[in-house]
Amino acid sequence: MLADQSEIKALIDLLARLPGLGPVSSRRIVLHLIRLKGNRMADVASAMQRVADNVRECSDCGNFCSTLKCEICNSAERLNGQICVVQDVADLWAMERSAAFKGKYHVLGGVLSMLQGMGPEDLRIPDLVERAGDAGVEEVILALSATVDGQTTAHYIADQLSGTGARVTSLGRGVPIGGELDFLDDGTIAAALSGRRDY
Amino acid sequence: MLADQSEIKALIDLLARLPGLGPVSSRRIVLHLIRLKGNRMADVASAMQRVADNVRECSDCGNFCSTLKCEICNSAERLNGQICVVQDVADLWAMERSAAFKGKYHVLGGVLSMLQGMGPEDLRIPDLVERAGDAGVEEVILALSATVDGQTTAHYIADQLSGTGARVTSLGRGVPIGGELDFLDDGTIAAALSGRRDY
Repeated sequence: MLADQSEIKALIDLLARLPGLGPVSSRRIVLHLIRLKGNRMADVASAMQRVADNVRECSDCGNFCSTLKCEICNSAERLNGQICVVQDVADLWAMERSAAFKGKYHVLGGVLSMLQGMGPEDLRIPDLVERAGDAGVEEVILALSATVDGQTTAHYIADQLSGTGARVTSLGRGVPIGGELDFLDDGTIAAALSGRRDY
Repeated sequence: MLADQSEIKALIDLLARLPGLGPVSSRRIVLHLIRLKGNRMADVASAMQRVADNVRECSDCGNFCSTLKCEICNSAERLNGQICVVQDVADLWAMERSAAFKGKYHVLGGVLSMLQGMGPEDLRIPDLVERAGDAGVEEVILALSATVDGQTTAHYIADQLSGTGARVTSLGRGVPIGGELDFLDDGTIAAALSGRRDY
């Protein structure tokens, strides 16, 4: 690239470091934005600046929001009796897209991991224990990944919550919607069998 | 998504429309940027704003730059005698990465295309004819894609330039570096054979 295009080059380099992008796709995006009429690039820049300026973590659940508490924590329509524990905000958004949960959330900010050096003190587990002890909390749903680290974290949290009196549950395991038995791994089939229900 | 996260949602929607991105990868990028420490999102936003504010087309060649003329047109080290005609700025950058060309460029801004309704008046062909008529221009290299539209455009330009006295050439055709004969299409093999050189 050329010295004269240092602004363009700086932008391409920044975008190339984002997940899923590289130098080629980043170049393509920047050229696309430059070519578009109506200064679309400035729109993206200002949308990004607004998020950078305003977004913070909800003081209660850890969701991203631009106010002190997030929309879900503030909502009168969401049940206070259920707390759904998720690894991070991406998981919270995934749960919300399913529109199946009407309670509140608690974002851990990660899972316990020996490899990544994440201990209980790095996650928002003490906050969760405090919230679970509040009057009216009936159930804590552990919606953590079905990985070794996710399940280790679930066990640890269930142990910590044993004194609070809240019921601790975890997501059902089994055949995913649209899943063909032939292509499922043995662990999933075994979990689906042990989790069988009356038809 | 939630009403409260309207800033985040607006940004995700904008990014999802960029080439190569969709709702899922856009969401992933935005969450990544929010999670990073040190306000990386603001860095990207301001880099983008700088490009939006400063970048324009070079008045001579059509390359993107932040001054009236681009670095290449201003450079005393680049030969004035050769003009390389490319379809757009992405192609110019690709030529520059090869570091094989020491002359100047002319960006057409597209190719002639019946389907897309691009006629000669939509491209910078009159400018090119004018530049090619300048004293000292010895050669115009047509570095256009080996597609039907690219070659139609090359023919048209060669025709337009016939009165200028400049030599009109086009890129060599043949086996790409690293290419295996077995996997090449018939047209490329025929072009390579007719373009054979003394060893």
